Amino acid sequence: MTKLDTIAKLLQEQEADLAILSNPMTINYLTGYFCDPHERLLFLFVFPNREPLLFLPELDLLRAKTQLNVSLIAYADDENPWQKIKSSLPKQAFDQLLVEFDHLNLSKYQGLTDIFSGHFENITPTINQMKLIKTADEIDKMLVAGQFADRAMQVGFDQISLTTTETDIIAQIEFAMKREGIPKMSFETMVLTGKNAANPHGIPGKNQLENNSLLLFDLGVETLGYTSDMTRTVALGQPDQFKKDIYQLCLEAQLTALDMIKPGVTAAEIDQAARSVIEKAGYGDFFNHRLGHGIGMEVHEFPSIMAGNDLVIQEGMCFSVEPGIYIPDKVGVRIEDCGYVTKHGFKLFTQTSKDLLYF
Amino acid sequence: MTKLDTIAKLLQEQEADLAILSNPMTINYLTGYFCDPHERLLFLFVFPNREPLLFLPELDLLRAKTQLNVSLIAYADDENPWQKIKSSLPKQAFDQLLVEFDHLNLSKYQGLTDIFSGHFENITPTINQMKLIKTADEIDKMLVAGQFADRAMQVGFDQISLTTTETDIIAQIEFAMKREGIPKMSFETMVLTGKNAANPHGIPGKNQLENNSLLLFDLGVETLGYTSDMTRTVALGQPDQFKKDIYQLCLEAQLTALDMIKPGVTAAEIDQAARSVIEKAGYGDFFNHRLGHGIGMEVHEFPSIMAGNDLVIQEGMCFSVEPGIYIPDKVGVRIEDCGYVTKHGFKLFTQTSKDLLYF
Repeated sequence: MTKLDTIAKLLQEQEADLAILSNPMTINYLTGYFCDPHERLLFLFVFPNREPLLFLPELDLLRAKTQLNVSLIAYADDENPWQKIKSSLPKQAFDQLLVEFDHLNLSKYQGLTDIFSGHFENITPTINQMKLIKTADEIDKMLVAGQFADRAMQVGFDQISLTTTETDIIAQIEFAMKREGIPKMSFETMVLTGKNAANPHGIPGKNQLENNSLLLFDLGVETLGYTSDMTRTVALGQPDQFKKDIYQLCLEAQLTALDMIKPGVTAAEIDQAARSVIEKAGYGDFFNHRLGHGIGMEVHEFPSIMAGNDLVIQEGMCFSVEPGIYIPDKVGVRIEDCGYVTKHGFKLFTQTSKDLLYF
Repeated sequence: MTKLDTIAKLLQEQEADLAILSNPMTINYLTGYFCDPHERLLFLFVFPNREPLLFLPELDLLRAKTQLNVSLIAYADDENPWQKIKSSLPKQAFDQLLVEFDHLNLSKYQGLTDIFSGHFENITPTINQMKLIKTADEIDKMLVAGQFADRAMQVGFDQISLTTTETDIIAQIEFAMKREGIPKMSFETMVLTGKNAANPHGIPGKNQLENNSLLLFDLGVETLGYTSDMTRTVALGQPDQFKKDIYQLCLEAQLTALDMIKPGVTAAEIDQAARSVIEKAGYGDFFNHRLGHGIGMEVHEFPSIMAGNDLVIQEGMCFSVEPGIYIPDKVGVRIEDCGYVTKHGFKLFTQTSKDLLYF
């Protein structure tokens, strides 16, 4: 059963007449076709007993034709897209409609309510639930994305020197990836030196690398439609004992969490496992974000690995485990791997060493 | 008067109690502070007679503190953000609220309606109207962004050879820009060779450059918070006369449009000026997109330069003029510059030559 069939079946079960998907990433997930319509309209209409229909800007039609075998309705920039939608859909009552509450904005919602007088329900939880459990094929793609992240990290390590800057290293990493055919990084690569790393959302700049301090790399690539995400913190010169201790504490927190992940534990329990290591050492206040986030086609998906999330972990879930300790003006450490849950525990997408590496 | 003051004044005039901005780009435009909250909540609350308040994820607090002087309320990942919003706002009735209909999704809208029982109106048109007319300071920044685009284009030209690929050239362009301190391109750089350029949304790959054909570059950078966007099509080897004629036709269409832009004409008239050049030559069907889009902090803004848009052009508006002719499997040409409207006509942000260049 294809993912589109799953949506059609859901409509039959819920006795709903139409699902309207508006998030380009959802459309990509369901059909394998990605299109960024910018401010233009893009909707995938899925019916309970009829072929799906993609409504898209005319200038995306050519590529869609070669990549998709659902019905396509294109609109030109000078057409009224809402009228075209109305006239393109089958003439029938649409009483129950499912739309993506987490994506559909109020303007588009108004456009749809002008066309459809039915009742709108939220399909976001269903889509999130589908995306939560990755298939073997998806995990294979994420392993490839992870291998590229390992290579990107190595490129970054190879660039470390006291005469280079954060920005220069980022340029070299992204250049190497582009040349290997990676169309884009999964987010803006972070290389943060010394005190800049002590800010969990620090911004890289033309800062020369600080000697005797820690250097943080956070990067990932997008390939085959899937993303990777990894953080490593390394030593440049001879950081003092305090910095090294903070590194070891962060690593212990990560390893403790990785070790206990298996089907049946909850997201909150995983977060707590890492957090209590850091809290016991007295640095709980400096670990001020959740332990992890889901990952897949997007670099931030469900599940959220954090306090209060009682979601029970299942086989096929993919997420990051990334404790961080940020002591302003002193030191910042984060260690992150993403992986997937198997019957026997958590397997990582990335393999770069986590011993404190010295450069 | 600051941009935030303008919103406060609007609230007073409309007798509204609160504006809730949710689009990170709007918040950036109004405050100069950009934060991508991913799936977390970020709202800027603007009151008619009280200091604005930014509600943001805790891990963005440190940077926000150094960059902003509005009140900040941060929430941790394990807090209920909606309850925190409710308890952080002044205890008063909020009967009339303004929100961004083009950004606020239904889930966040529901969250807000649980807190506020008042009536929600759309502030998107007001924000768009403010953003439509650029200040002299904004235009200065866009000129800088344009200069970087010219340099990026030159880097691309310098890489042209029969043994290189689309992807390799893109890697070199983006590498050069990163090293010059450009944090990111304003969109994915396009280098499209031969038939690939004949698809208006073609995707670059490891294609070696085709000899005796046209090669299309579409690129822009983001700097100082503003974007640039430019397209050039050049010749590699000796393209046949037909290809050269299509190039000249596209150029004539662009120059015709650029020449007639001044305060008082409409967006539709500008589109028509370029389009009729191409239509008269019999290629109207192959120019299948609008003539241009607004540009500013984002690479696609208002005004849309297209048929049906009767918006009257005013001084300070910034947009692209980019006719394209795409004849599938044969040839693709697009020529694009962005510029700003002055009393005396349209001035360009980019200066790269538009004579058909041979490589």
